[in-house]
Amino acid sequence: MNKIYNPKFEDWSEVLKRPTQTFSEVEETVKGIFKEVQQKGDQAVLKYTSLFDGINLTNFVVPQNEIDTAINEIASDLKSAISLAKSNIEKFHTSQRTTKIEVETTKGVMCWQEKRSIQRVGLYIPGGSAPLFSTVLMLAVPAKIAGCKEIVLCTPPDKKGSINPTILFAAQLCGVTKIYKIGGIQAIAAMTFGTESIEKVYKIFGPGNQFVTIAKQYASQLGVAIDMPAGPSELLVFADESAIPSFVASDLLSQAEHGKDSQVILVTTSKNVLNDVEQEIYKQLEVLPRKEIAQVAINNSKLIFVDNDENALKLINEYGPEHFIICAKNEDYFLNNIENAGSIFIGNYTPESAGDYASGTNHTLPTNGYSKSYSGVNLDSFLKAMTFQKISKEGIINIGKSIELMAEAEGLQAHKNAVTLRLNKITNKQTNKI
Amino acid sequence: MNKIYNPKFEDWSEVLKRPTQTFSEVEETVKGIFKEVQQKGDQAVLKYTSLFDGINLTNFVVPQNEIDTAINEIASDLKSAISLAKSNIEKFHTSQRTTKIEVETTKGVMCWQEKRSIQRVGLYIPGGSAPLFSTVLMLAVPAKIAGCKEIVLCTPPDKKGSINPTILFAAQLCGVTKIYKIGGIQAIAAMTFGTESIEKVYKIFGPGNQFVTIAKQYASQLGVAIDMPAGPSELLVFADESAIPSFVASDLLSQAEHGKDSQVILVTTSKNVLNDVEQEIYKQLEVLPRKEIAQVAINNSKLIFVDNDENALKLINEYGPEHFIICAKNEDYFLNNIENAGSIFIGNYTPESAGDYASGTNHTLPTNGYSKSYSGVNLDSFLKAMTFQKISKEGIINIGKSIELMAEAEGLQAHKNAVTLRLNKITNKQTNKI
Repeated sequence: MNKIYNPKFEDWSEVLKRPTQTFSEVEETVKGIFKEVQQKGDQAVLKYTSLFDGINLTNFVVPQNEIDTAINEIASDLKSAISLAKSNIEKFHTSQRTTKIEVETTKGVMCWQEKRSIQRVGLYIPGGSAPLFSTVLMLAVPAKIAGCKEIVLCTPPDKKGSINPTILFAAQLCGVTKIYKIGGIQAIAAMTFGTESIEKVYKIFGPGNQFVTIAKQYASQLGVAIDMPAGPSELLVFADESAIPSFVASDLLSQAEHGKDSQVILVTTSKNVLNDVEQEIYKQLEVLPRKEIAQVAINNSKLIFVDNDENALKLINEYGPEHFIICAKNEDYFLNNIENAGSIFIGNYTPESAGDYASGTNHTLPTNGYSKSYSGVNLDSFLKAMTFQKISKEGIINIGKSIELMAEAEGLQAHKNAVTLRLNKITNKQTNKI
Repeated sequence: MNKIYNPKFEDWSEVLKRPTQTFSEVEETVKGIFKEVQQKGDQAVLKYTSLFDGINLTNFVVPQNEIDTAINEIASDLKSAISLAKSNIEKFHTSQRTTKIEVETTKGVMCWQEKRSIQRVGLYIPGGSAPLFSTVLMLAVPAKIAGCKEIVLCTPPDKKGSINPTILFAAQLCGVTKIYKIGGIQAIAAMTFGTESIEKVYKIFGPGNQFVTIAKQYASQLGVAIDMPAGPSELLVFADESAIPSFVASDLLSQAEHGKDSQVILVTTSKNVLNDVEQEIYKQLEVLPRKEIAQVAINNSKLIFVDNDENALKLINEYGPEHFIICAKNEDYFLNNIENAGSIFIGNYTPESAGDYASGTNHTLPTNGYSKSYSGVNLDSFLKAMTFQKISKEGIINIGKSIELMAEAEGLQAHKNAVTLRLNKITNKQTNKI
């Protein structure tokens, strides 16, 4: 681990530097597969499923009987756990509903804003070593609350052509309307263009490896919205003397096990805590099944000592972590002044795992410093705000003159005429202009 | 104009097709300038300002005395008009404020969501023939309400090195913190990377030509957020026999004068209205100063007759217009069932111009079918939703078991351990594992 003591302000950007990823090679692959899926539809999807997932399928729609069988396979205590998580996620995201906002800005000028659901959304769930059924909950639950009509899920099949049963169970539980056994670039391309079997969607959500990330970015240039740009997962813990080092270490490790490129940072005002956390990390690391992965992330991790809370806060706001844990006496100071972070966990009994699974908050969060400008996935991610206005004759009389003056000053005469015609009609005057 | 009668469903995609734009050439130019601005900062910005805007500047920060002089130049009735517009925009966007949302999802598990401002935003305002000071209002007013600390504005200088006074007036009125005389790709690059004179921003807003559009898209791959992808402006009017053809024509023309690539569509259930609107368009077009531009857009426009309101609605939802005017007896049907549109204008006395300038709604809206997934600019565009959670010992006892089960099922042991350690501490048990 890299231990850094009181880094100077001019060194912050170096200390907080995230590994940059270059994607130019991947980009060409992505564009090629997109073109093929656009032209050849299902045939291209099947070809790349065979190539990348090692399975020849004739059909990638998951039939209901496969879902039913899967559901029977899952242990009942896991089902209950998933149901509790779902219920909490539902409560928290339902509370995010907003009502119609209506304002009469000037007498006779009614303006309002309503949110309506994105009709067709696509959820991407990675396959591979860890079946991320928790991400199904995080995306499908708010999609359902928002009222999205089509909730499509794509996830890659294993070499036998199967989907992990827990993913199927979660998808069914949360109201996913269609499940497809396809992954990677070809899945994103299929949801972007549509194929014979898959209807195109308007917005694509979900995590993925660098191929999926680049594919989503490319899709966003082709008329489909995406949830957010994705990078390796991150955790920053601020801990003072009130923190429990073994807990802090366990949180840092839970981040580190995600991937070799995970970002793990401890910021502390206590040298004791710094050293104790370091020791605890090595101790706990030993027994982890994913030790090999976590070890790499831990080697790149940073333990940063700073003199006081003010500098700690500045440093953290400069970094803008995806996950931010606060274990400090002075927690209100951090809470009130944190500007850039995806999700914030407070106190010794609030592990990041809670938000990853079951507390109710969403775990799809901005990485790579994007917390400076992006929200994590929330109910609004599945809605769009639309504005409405209805103006009475009195209303257009009240604001018409201003519109005419502004349109004229911008050199847009037809904009002005649209008002002038109406004003003339009201005052029954005739104009020579029109 | 293209008149289309009852198009068959299978022809809709052709009828509603937007012109596709290819950007590959522009892309190389954008990447080149970005690289140079990143490496050489102000020097590169000055070079391209000289090259593209035809003016050699030594400094592009607009000083306060230039702003003061500009403000004195503006006619007082225009100032009043701008102030009324600002006041209405302020009322409507202030009403969009949301409060903290707090839920105890399970006993002892407190989750909340708060919105905090994006600290540094950049507004791009095009120069050229029409000085779009109205866009300054539409972007700076909500940025100020949101509490953004730095509100930077970039706009290209004219050949004398000046900025249109109305833009300076609007910027000053709305609390823009810094104004720079730079435009085009070099402005977007400067706001993306920062230079000696310009601090980098976290999110870039505003319209622009295809160079600016591609530059914003490229910026969004480099860590900066953007408001939305932009395309040519669009208006779709639905009119039945209750519509006043001269009004409809004036609205279609106000869209057409924006640019040769503007999208103008009339959908109607009345052949009389279709013919009357067509005649009115030709009549009104004659006297427009921007006739040459409007004529091209009108030539490409579409007048579509459909048999009934149901088909009209389906067609409109399939298109997803940026602006949608409803002049119909049956207006509630359209209001209640419109799924995809940026901003909706209702009734004969609600011209699109009203929303462009002064009613209070925002005029920065999703084009190119993006209304299917994107909101127009609103207060939330300048905020990000952050989630918080604080779990008590009781709380972690209540949800801990579920987290352990789910983490284990996903194969993430360290996630489980973070909970196990805490549960053990509470129950005072010792575990051999850790």
